[in-house]
Amino acid sequence: MQVTASAPGKIILFGEHAVVYGKPAIAVAVDRRAYVTVQNREDEQIYVEVPDLEVSGYLNLEENEVKLETGDKTKKGILIYMLKSIERIHAGSGMNIHVDLNVPIGAGLGSSAAITVATIAAVSKFNGKNLSLEETARKAHEVELEVQGAASPIDTTLSTYGGIIYLSKNADALVPLEVNMEMPLVVGYTSKRGNTGELVESVRKRRENYPDALNLILDSVEALTNNAKEAILQNDEKRFGELMNINHGLLDAMGVNTAELSRMVYAAREAGAKGSKITGAGGGGSIIAYCPGKTEEVMEELNTFEKAFNANVSEEGVKIHSEN
Amino acid sequence: MQVTASAPGKIILFGEHAVVYGKPAIAVAVDRRAYVTVQNREDEQIYVEVPDLEVSGYLNLEENEVKLETGDKTKKGILIYMLKSIERIHAGSGMNIHVDLNVPIGAGLGSSAAITVATIAAVSKFNGKNLSLEETARKAHEVELEVQGAASPIDTTLSTYGGIIYLSKNADALVPLEVNMEMPLVVGYTSKRGNTGELVESVRKRRENYPDALNLILDSVEALTNNAKEAILQNDEKRFGELMNINHGLLDAMGVNTAELSRMVYAAREAGAKGSKITGAGGGGSIIAYCPGKTEEVMEELNTFEKAFNANVSEEGVKIHSEN
Repeated sequence: MQVTASAPGKIILFGEHAVVYGKPAIAVAVDRRAYVTVQNREDEQIYVEVPDLEVSGYLNLEENEVKLETGDKTKKGILIYMLKSIERIHAGSGMNIHVDLNVPIGAGLGSSAAITVATIAAVSKFNGKNLSLEETARKAHEVELEVQGAASPIDTTLSTYGGIIYLSKNADALVPLEVNMEMPLVVGYTSKRGNTGELVESVRKRRENYPDALNLILDSVEALTNNAKEAILQNDEKRFGELMNINHGLLDAMGVNTAELSRMVYAAREAGAKGSKITGAGGGGSIIAYCPGKTEEVMEELNTFEKAFNANVSEEGVKIHSEN
Repeated sequence: MQVTASAPGKIILFGEHAVVYGKPAIAVAVDRRAYVTVQNREDEQIYVEVPDLEVSGYLNLEENEVKLETGDKTKKGILIYMLKSIERIHAGSGMNIHVDLNVPIGAGLGSSAAITVATIAAVSKFNGKNLSLEETARKAHEVELEVQGAASPIDTTLSTYGGIIYLSKNADALVPLEVNMEMPLVVGYTSKRGNTGELVESVRKRRENYPDALNLILDSVEALTNNAKEAILQNDEKRFGELMNINHGLLDAMGVNTAELSRMVYAAREAGAKGSKITGAGGGGSIIAYCPGKTEEVMEELNTFEKAFNANVSEEGVKIHSEN
């Protein structure tokens, strides 16, 4: 028997960092997916291979540990998400699991949530359990909470349901937005990753030192995020792009921009992007550019830095591809 | 008989653009000066030469016009400020005027105000009139208003009095701040000038399109400018630098940053500047970097772009150097 499930990665469009202070955010599932295939195995072990990361190993549920077979320890993390996912659905053992990644790791695209959601879906199905989307999203969020200590439900929600979501003020609700607009995005990716925890802490300190200025900046992010929600609903490309640019400046003011990210953001605009900004924590990591009609030009320009790839909104969340 | 007067240029430290909406600003007179020397002349003409700009010509008070002798028309502007200055003090004619510029033109350093103030002081003295500083500043501002159509009194006030001024909310008052701190600044200058009128208009449009987000950004500039005033009074270098960085991000959010200015701002920080930002209208023009102990390093780095020069706060405003 074999089951394949996939789940999309995500991109934060608006509101990163501000969301820590109860401000709204907008994020979108993208057509960059993690594929998890589960097959029978003769013995009772759980073997996982992730060729894209050159890592493989065994998940030991009883001893709650991962034994690497190949790959370095820095890549062990992804197997821990899988171990915790399988534990949480109380699945049986005796499985060979193969993971294909079309979503890059460490680029702020929520690869861990995509892998977690796809693993939960594939392994459940393989074991004859039909999880609802709600259960899948909840369990995946629990896994992220367990592994990371803290986690927003945004990533796991988008990997489960797809589409665009608006996280309302104080994270009261995750509201799906109907997508009326084309959303051709280019991600410019730097291998120098920012440390999310340190960046969140640096914004906290800056806000502590300059509360008046920073609180107004966070309020401004809230205003533009709500404005961007309207722009999406009204299919207003120009407004959407301009609001990205404003949000970028505010992230710069929070102190999470870098020389390289800044160069990429401006290079994308000069190549024709309607808007461009840091996405995620900053301090390295990725930028996104919104490029209706200019995807190739922006890709070409951003590829002169480190690595660029295109992404589009994915209406499709987690999906079972085959079962036989 | 010969009289030489000089007046300092200025740098805007905080609040550019926001000042258009009644927000406070902070600017400083710098030790980059315009020197105006007036000598007797046999005939009744007024001859001016500005070797630094390779321009010379005659000022005709009766016909209210400038006749260029050498130099191209783009540099005629500076002679118009001088013509209007001399008209306004009802000085006699028959003068040779020599101008030496240690303040660069078109770099946002208020060269026209420095030249206007120095001209008013030198020509008045030459004609036996002792203008008070108050009269000098007022007449210089009137000249700028006449030539430019609109002009803040900041530039002419600083060229007259020197020091640091805080322009209070709604331009109600120009408050001199006691300078307790070293203010070693490096100016990175690009020959690509932004058009101030167009930039002010672009911010106005952005505010019209996104009033909530932009008004909060302007409020944040107000908060950080008031905070910077305290930092200056308390000689707090770190806070002063960080507030410059925040103000830069907010100028980026207003849309007046460029790829080149952004590179310079980050290059200055990487070379050791405690803070760096666009100064003036943006869209080209200049950046300033605040560099205690790192002036040479930042100069060297910014010189790899176009042109950099250092500047320090000038306590001295307009000054008569010699009279004999």
